[in-house]
Amino acid sequence: MMNHRELLQRTYDHARETSMLAGTLALLEWDQHTYIPSRAGAFRADQITCLSGILHERQTSPTYGDWLATLAESDFAKDRESIDAANIRGLLRDFKRNIQLPESLVKATAHATSIGQQIWAEARANDDFISFLPALETIINLRREEASILQKPDRTKYDSLLDQYEEGADSEHIANVFDSLRRELVPIVQQASEKERISSRKIVAGSVFEIDAQRRLARWVAQQIGFDFDRGRLDDTEHPFCTTLGPHDHRILSRYFPDSYSSGLYGVLHEAGHGMYEQGTPTDMHGLPAGSAASLGIHESQSRLWENVVGRSRGFWRWLLPHAYQHLPPLRDFSLERIREDLNRVEPSLIRIESDEATYNLHIFVRFEIEKDLIDGDLKTSDLPDLWNQRYREYLGVTPLNHATGLMQDVHWSAGLIGYFPTYTLGNLYAAQIMQAAENQLGDMEELFSRGEFFPLLEWLRVHIHSRGRCIQPHELMRQVTGKPLEADSFLNYLKSKLL
Amino acid sequence: MMNHRELLQRTYDHARETSMLAGTLALLEWDQHTYIPSRAGAFRADQITCLSGILHERQTSPTYGDWLATLAESDFAKDRESIDAANIRGLLRDFKRNIQLPESLVKATAHATSIGQQIWAEARANDDFISFLPALETIINLRREEASILQKPDRTKYDSLLDQYEEGADSEHIANVFDSLRRELVPIVQQASEKERISSRKIVAGSVFEIDAQRRLARWVAQQIGFDFDRGRLDDTEHPFCTTLGPHDHRILSRYFPDSYSSGLYGVLHEAGHGMYEQGTPTDMHGLPAGSAASLGIHESQSRLWENVVGRSRGFWRWLLPHAYQHLPPLRDFSLERIREDLNRVEPSLIRIESDEATYNLHIFVRFEIEKDLIDGDLKTSDLPDLWNQRYREYLGVTPLNHATGLMQDVHWSAGLIGYFPTYTLGNLYAAQIMQAAENQLGDMEELFSRGEFFPLLEWLRVHIHSRGRCIQPHELMRQVTGKPLEADSFLNYLKSKLL
Repeated sequence: MMNHRELLQRTYDHARETSMLAGTLALLEWDQHTYIPSRAGAFRADQITCLSGILHERQTSPTYGDWLATLAESDFAKDRESIDAANIRGLLRDFKRNIQLPESLVKATAHATSIGQQIWAEARANDDFISFLPALETIINLRREEASILQKPDRTKYDSLLDQYEEGADSEHIANVFDSLRRELVPIVQQASEKERISSRKIVAGSVFEIDAQRRLARWVAQQIGFDFDRGRLDDTEHPFCTTLGPHDHRILSRYFPDSYSSGLYGVLHEAGHGMYEQGTPTDMHGLPAGSAASLGIHESQSRLWENVVGRSRGFWRWLLPHAYQHLPPLRDFSLERIREDLNRVEPSLIRIESDEATYNLHIFVRFEIEKDLIDGDLKTSDLPDLWNQRYREYLGVTPLNHATGLMQDVHWSAGLIGYFPTYTLGNLYAAQIMQAAENQLGDMEELFSRGEFFPLLEWLRVHIHSRGRCIQPHELMRQVTGKPLEADSFLNYLKSKLL
Repeated sequence: MMNHRELLQRTYDHARETSMLAGTLALLEWDQHTYIPSRAGAFRADQITCLSGILHERQTSPTYGDWLATLAESDFAKDRESIDAANIRGLLRDFKRNIQLPESLVKATAHATSIGQQIWAEARANDDFISFLPALETIINLRREEASILQKPDRTKYDSLLDQYEEGADSEHIANVFDSLRRELVPIVQQASEKERISSRKIVAGSVFEIDAQRRLARWVAQQIGFDFDRGRLDDTEHPFCTTLGPHDHRILSRYFPDSYSSGLYGVLHEAGHGMYEQGTPTDMHGLPAGSAASLGIHESQSRLWENVVGRSRGFWRWLLPHAYQHLPPLRDFSLERIREDLNRVEPSLIRIESDEATYNLHIFVRFEIEKDLIDGDLKTSDLPDLWNQRYREYLGVTPLNHATGLMQDVHWSAGLIGYFPTYTLGNLYAAQIMQAAENQLGDMEELFSRGEFFPLLEWLRVHIHSRGRCIQPHELMRQVTGKPLEADSFLNYLKSKLL
């Protein structure tokens, strides 16, 4: 019979070894999105499936479950503020979810999403929804099945997916927050759109921004804001993302277009925000809740904060301008204010990740409502394009040109990420709240940014957010850090003062 | 009770799933040699260790062993010429070896060699043997332990390591072949060295061969000789190698120096030879002996054949010259004959992979004798540098300048690859025999090479070598393909006609 201390150690060791497999799976996926040869995709899907099965077996080992149950009753769990208690709580929560899922479902989902992303990438390139449809249908059916299994009493099926990304979130509450946010956003968008601003076409008209130069500039910017390249990488991919392979291995990815000076850069700023969060979690707790991110909403708060609140600020561009001029000569025809206006121009558009900070959330509302309907309602996958286009007309007043700029623009559903999208708007709201709290303590940071000094902000985020891990639920973390629960006012005030 | 056909299917499925894990391990290692962030090495070693344990568990599953034992007595094993019989034979052989090795030893070796390669790379860069010594000692002790466990009656310990790379090989027989080869090589080297040739310094003096241009040229050459980039990649690394991640995923790696036009290119030619062999094994048999390479000696025959027999031929350079001139302008001062002489100049030197075809084998003899002594004798790891330098003086008449150009030049020992080196000279001998057999059927190929037509040779190799997999032992394969057992005459005749 082990004593509780030994049991805790064994449990931690088990979780850490599990994280080695999870990191291996992340490498298989990272490679699939970067360097894999074109014909190797099918076998890669088999590998991912195989490893997902092994991972799930470890995550649901009955002995491990017994250890956690014992620990949950032990002294270690009693002091709810302690790190150990948080770890036990989080691990038990994960175990209880995983144990409900049959290995066959886990493996089928792993296979369908690995293949699904491959099919999506090709179908998007060819604007071919029909060839993507069967794969998407399979994925949605598998996620519906998972949602049914995990559904809690008095909660919707969709909630059980949402809960995987944002612990404790409730889609009804989110829907209410989003509804009132939408009501407030509509006049802001209208008013801001009417302001006379330079058209994007003016800045890019006929200009070619050399891809290699964009890459170098973006990498340098990521380094300057604090992303640690000794513990991470930046690579090219189809759709930007960030992934963690180990406690000192955080990889960000973006893509660059010759006719845009900002698209690749802001992809990198966003993903570097994610990466710096991961790099700020306690490395000695890697693989445990205390060494993990609090939630995806908090994660998105970090990425959106660096991308927008910092990256589209006047101070940031005051600092960046000479470097941008140097790397991207066609920009030299435009002043600081012109570029800043261009980057903050409010204009309903088709592509979420290219959109401004105000209309961005309208893109999310479309996805959130469709997702809920896919899981809880009787929306058919084949009806998706029509509904998508209809909602875009309704919410944004624009109609997708094709499937590639419509519902196939995002990788998420092909990767099985359903219930993920709302965390982006949560992230926007959190980011505004967090930035306000930071400013209350650090003062206005525009001056620092204009000198390229990002460390005070990063350090503040590390102390107040990153180092906290996943020890408390996101809404509680927000309350502790900002003194307020989730609310839209900070974000709306931020938007108004910036855009109007 | 399963019938034998079902049992065979299950066994194949098990082996194929095992190959998915082996391919995953290969990805972890490939990434460690290419793109891993500098601080992520320790966790990577943990990941490799963890996965090696899981792989070993699968490879030694008692149920799987029972299946194989039953199949070995079944009708499937009776027709020894059949593919199924070959698969059963090969899988059972692997199982019997793996089952003898305790998981703790397998994991300890995986960890020591992952860390070992990291320490080696840094120590080599700093010419610092002392910091490499403890890691090397650990690895050698682990391999000694493995050799003791696997040792067969009437065989040396070293034989049990050698047998992992060259099935059925016997170090005493190899030592005899090498001894007589050495006696024949000495006058060839002497006579060839005396021939007046352009000095390497003359071609490179002050020249800078742009790294990117070298990379592009090497990639293009690999493509032209038949390496399929839809099923493979070429990347940069510290020490060239080739690795297989799946049936359609073969990755080759090389490195380039600004003061050499040939070093990177010949690294690529060598590794592309390995890669094309792997690409030529039957993909539907991937993970099974029939879909694997026959042995490392046969593997090296393919790499050395493309690197040397093809790559240093007059025909090859007749074809390559205009392209080389285009990519590497400083070469333009030199004629076809000058370059060819430069590439075939016999001169005892320090670095194995940079050496000419004749002295190359002397580098191997040094390593082979030291390895045997490390495993079977009482050679101390700390005495290695002195013995190395002494042997280099004795066999090659040169003295290493330092450890980096001495015993730390090769990655092999740091990766635990002890018993591997002799397969290079076996490869040289096999390659000459194979090329003679090919020429008997296809005629002189110089004319084809000069037109860039490499497909007839590749196709011949595919039919006679690649597609055969690991169905018979290498010496039997050689007998069938060349009509002769392993012998040195073909190689010596080839050398004489080329170099004297």
